[in-house]
Amino acid sequence: MNGAERTIDTLLRRGVDTCFTNPGTSEMHFVAALDRTPSMRSVLALFEGVASGAADGYGRIARRPAVTLLHLGPGMANGLANLHNARRARTPVVNVVGEHAVAHQEFDPPLATDIEGLARPMSGWVGTVTSAAGLAATVDAAVDAAVGPPGTVATVIVPADLSWGEVGEAVPGASTTHGAPGEDARGGSAGTGQRADGDTSGAGGTVHSGAVLQFPATSPMGDVVWALRSGEPAAIVVGGRACNGPFLRRAAQVAAASGAQLLAETFPARLARGAGIPAPDRLAYLAELAQLQMAGLRHLVLVDAPTPVSFFAYPGIPSVLVPDGCALHVLAGPGDDLGSALDELAGGLGVAADAVAPAPASARPDRPSGALTAQSVAAAIGAVLPEGAIVSDESNTCGIHIPGATAGCPPHDWLTLTGGAIGQGLPVATGAAIAAPGRRVLCLEADGSAMYTIQSLWTQAREGLDVTTVVLDNHAYGILAFELSRVGAGTPGPIASSMLDLDRPELDFVALATGMGVPACRATSAEELVTVLEKAMAEPGPSLIQVPVPRTL
Amino acid sequence: MNGAERTIDTLLRRGVDTCFTNPGTSEMHFVAALDRTPSMRSVLALFEGVASGAADGYGRIARRPAVTLLHLGPGMANGLANLHNARRARTPVVNVVGEHAVAHQEFDPPLATDIEGLARPMSGWVGTVTSAAGLAATVDAAVDAAVGPPGTVATVIVPADLSWGEVGEAVPGASTTHGAPGEDARGGSAGTGQRADGDTSGAGGTVHSGAVLQFPATSPMGDVVWALRSGEPAAIVVGGRACNGPFLRRAAQVAAASGAQLLAETFPARLARGAGIPAPDRLAYLAELAQLQMAGLRHLVLVDAPTPVSFFAYPGIPSVLVPDGCALHVLAGPGDDLGSALDELAGGLGVAADAVAPAPASARPDRPSGALTAQSVAAAIGAVLPEGAIVSDESNTCGIHIPGATAGCPPHDWLTLTGGAIGQGLPVATGAAIAAPGRRVLCLEADGSAMYTIQSLWTQAREGLDVTTVVLDNHAYGILAFELSRVGAGTPGPIASSMLDLDRPELDFVALATGMGVPACRATSAEELVTVLEKAMAEPGPSLIQVPVPRTL
Repeated sequence: MNGAERTIDTLLRRGVDTCFTNPGTSEMHFVAALDRTPSMRSVLALFEGVASGAADGYGRIARRPAVTLLHLGPGMANGLANLHNARRARTPVVNVVGEHAVAHQEFDPPLATDIEGLARPMSGWVGTVTSAAGLAATVDAAVDAAVGPPGTVATVIVPADLSWGEVGEAVPGASTTHGAPGEDARGGSAGTGQRADGDTSGAGGTVHSGAVLQFPATSPMGDVVWALRSGEPAAIVVGGRACNGPFLRRAAQVAAASGAQLLAETFPARLARGAGIPAPDRLAYLAELAQLQMAGLRHLVLVDAPTPVSFFAYPGIPSVLVPDGCALHVLAGPGDDLGSALDELAGGLGVAADAVAPAPASARPDRPSGALTAQSVAAAIGAVLPEGAIVSDESNTCGIHIPGATAGCPPHDWLTLTGGAIGQGLPVATGAAIAAPGRRVLCLEADGSAMYTIQSLWTQAREGLDVTTVVLDNHAYGILAFELSRVGAGTPGPIASSMLDLDRPELDFVALATGMGVPACRATSAEELVTVLEKAMAEPGPSLIQVPVPRTL
Repeated sequence: MNGAERTIDTLLRRGVDTCFTNPGTSEMHFVAALDRTPSMRSVLALFEGVASGAADGYGRIARRPAVTLLHLGPGMANGLANLHNARRARTPVVNVVGEHAVAHQEFDPPLATDIEGLARPMSGWVGTVTSAAGLAATVDAAVDAAVGPPGTVATVIVPADLSWGEVGEAVPGASTTHGAPGEDARGGSAGTGQRADGDTSGAGGTVHSGAVLQFPATSPMGDVVWALRSGEPAAIVVGGRACNGPFLRRAAQVAAASGAQLLAETFPARLARGAGIPAPDRLAYLAELAQLQMAGLRHLVLVDAPTPVSFFAYPGIPSVLVPDGCALHVLAGPGDDLGSALDELAGGLGVAADAVAPAPASARPDRPSGALTAQSVAAAIGAVLPEGAIVSDESNTCGIHIPGATAGCPPHDWLTLTGGAIGQGLPVATGAAIAAPGRRVLCLEADGSAMYTIQSLWTQAREGLDVTTVVLDNHAYGILAFELSRVGAGTPGPIASSMLDLDRPELDFVALATGMGVPACRATSAEELVTVLEKAMAEPGPSLIQVPVPRTL
């Protein structure tokens, strides 16, 4: 077995069976190995940002990592923005990045770069394979790191000569998790999967990592119980894994029993929603609105959620949005046993396993008619969203009414822009559809963000994915026109306006989608939108609907 | 004046008057400042890779830096691949990257990243502004570093509070080049413009730099003169600045007088070509062919050119392509006084200032007819290429016959893919057109590479740029199918083939261009291609021609 084959074999043994890629010459042995390994699903992207975002969407839905296969430093670089979002989402992702053959590196050929340096800011784990003997263990360590908990982005760099060289077979039946010793990997620890805040690669086999996310220390359980028993205004903020399933329900039970508000972090990686599912209020993106949501609180209990901070700094607005005099309690962080922590809290408060967890009743908006507005578009989506849908939401300012209009729809999952790096929605939808065949994916995409990774549509067409994309087209970076005044930069004149407007020339998303093999149409009224949405969601394969909407801000 | 205004004022004082941008909230004060500074031309890109590639194209033609304005770490990340190409081209580029306000950074908001870490691998100079007093000097130092020689990518990181805070006016008449002391910038030295191979930021005000390109030491002049007088087979290899104007002519005179071959580096940033201009043979991309070009040489004289090395490593092929027994002589490197070195060499060899410099005669291929093939497409381009054209060449395998077919065309400039990071051609064409109004830009673009930064077309339409794009569409990553066998990975089966093919679905570049406001058509025969090319080049503004061609390899 050569190194490329062994890498893929190792990934498959760990259940990593989906590869998003745009390979190059240094990855050709991986491509050849994929040929011989049909159990690894290989998905081609026209741009690495599509591959990395698809791996994020896949991981959020499948709850296990996909692998990306990227070409040298530039391929890694092109994938970084969506890896940033994945890292913020704590999505498990494994990147395999090809590097020049070891003996070739000293000659500084044109494509040579510092791949580890590029990977570090957006990876929780980075390792370079330095020997045939250590290859499988390094790949294993990357999977360990990616899976966590907490999940993260793990990057393995494989020099070409180690991908084409013989490395031997895995021993049948043996675990590959704890294989060769750490010194076989540079940077990456082979087998230990440890992480550090800084570069401690020389110290006992720990790994490079400049990107481990900070999280405050867990509070004593007694303090949390006391806070929720105090009778003082309190809120529980769910985030991360607490936005789903039994964790969300348990948090909702505790909130209801103790009289606390139930809030959610602003941009959850994956939020379970719909009729019968507890519905926390998401903290607003706008700092001023988030402050209103938390006004008067004396206790804030964080359940796998970060401390509420402003997305950006503004002159005169504090960074931390927790009200003065409000105590912050951390029930559990991303690496903790969330179920036990919630059960212990419920026990301390005497909340039964079958306690009430308030949730929205089944309800849909009436089918709207008339002009396309942010409201009527939201109603149209609420009128048709199918059960089990996965919504990849990058609708930004155009979409502010959509969560409200879909709150009582049949159960569905909502994926948000976790890291603020735009261009996430289309790739995440692509990966989510591959992770969940049979479920309809609805991609809500703002025009400006859509153009970052529009190449995703081609992969959707090629793979025949059940993704319906709604491009909400307000001909502007709507959020920026608003932010310009918020940061105190005044009223935009002609030049500033031209840096925020997308109407010269207008983007024809129908043409763009058609050009990449995705059937597309334009809606001109709310009733037409309902009709084409229903049709699009009922038919197999991808489609795109361009929806002109007035600016909301 | 606030920091954003002072930054722009400082850049304008240094002659940097063109800004390629996709800004975000942390750059809104820059956007507002651009509003008040119409002498800075502001060009919006739909994706940062377009902005950074356009800055590369601009710098190659204007021979002075443009500035990019990028949004935080993700904006920087999206620009990196084309900054890699710019760094390899030694193009002067200044990046201004917004960062969160200093007091906000500790709270790790969603968009927080290690911007310096991201910038370093693709920048020759990185500095972060840390005080109002040091801002202008840091920006000045970045311009110094970018301009060189050698030119490089310089990145200045400006926290939002330092862009919105007051920094005072520049003193009228005073040079801003040597302003505040070095301690006012973290990483970046304010005023000295020194660079180092490693991080020596603590040592006397030098700067972070992990990306300074290596270059071998200059040889004693006597050795070079001796080598070219020896009568042994010799070649002069021109690269960098030696691919243009008087330097190219002087090198050609020396080669002709001494009987040496005249070669050029494989991927010059900007090569002057056409009737009457000395025409070095470019070293082939394929290592085997480059070895044939240099077979039997006993002396290789490098004139601002790197040592010929293989683009990738292949099993059994050496990395360095210089023949055994051939001595390597470095006449001058990227930071040296090239004119003096060439004059001294010419003097040593007794080559007069008006010595013969052989050059192609004026000649064009006949207008082709019949089927579209790599040969007929090349002839069509050779038949119509206008005088003064700028060719942005990312035609890859489809374009192998085009240099030959255009060798005798009227004088023109040829820009190539310097760093191997695909997605360069369209952005570079965009920036070149802005640098050279009145000159026709011809962008030769392979289908796979085109899809990396296809958003460039929108900026071309918006700015009304005279760019004619020819998409050479062979439905494949043609080079990779070839490389797969070269690296010894065998014959591709169905899965491998599907990772290299772009024919499922087919890309409709006419639809894609039209969707972004660029008029487009498809050529179906060689005579039709000539007709539409002539029409496209005669009309103002951008256009695109999709040209289906068979695979060449």
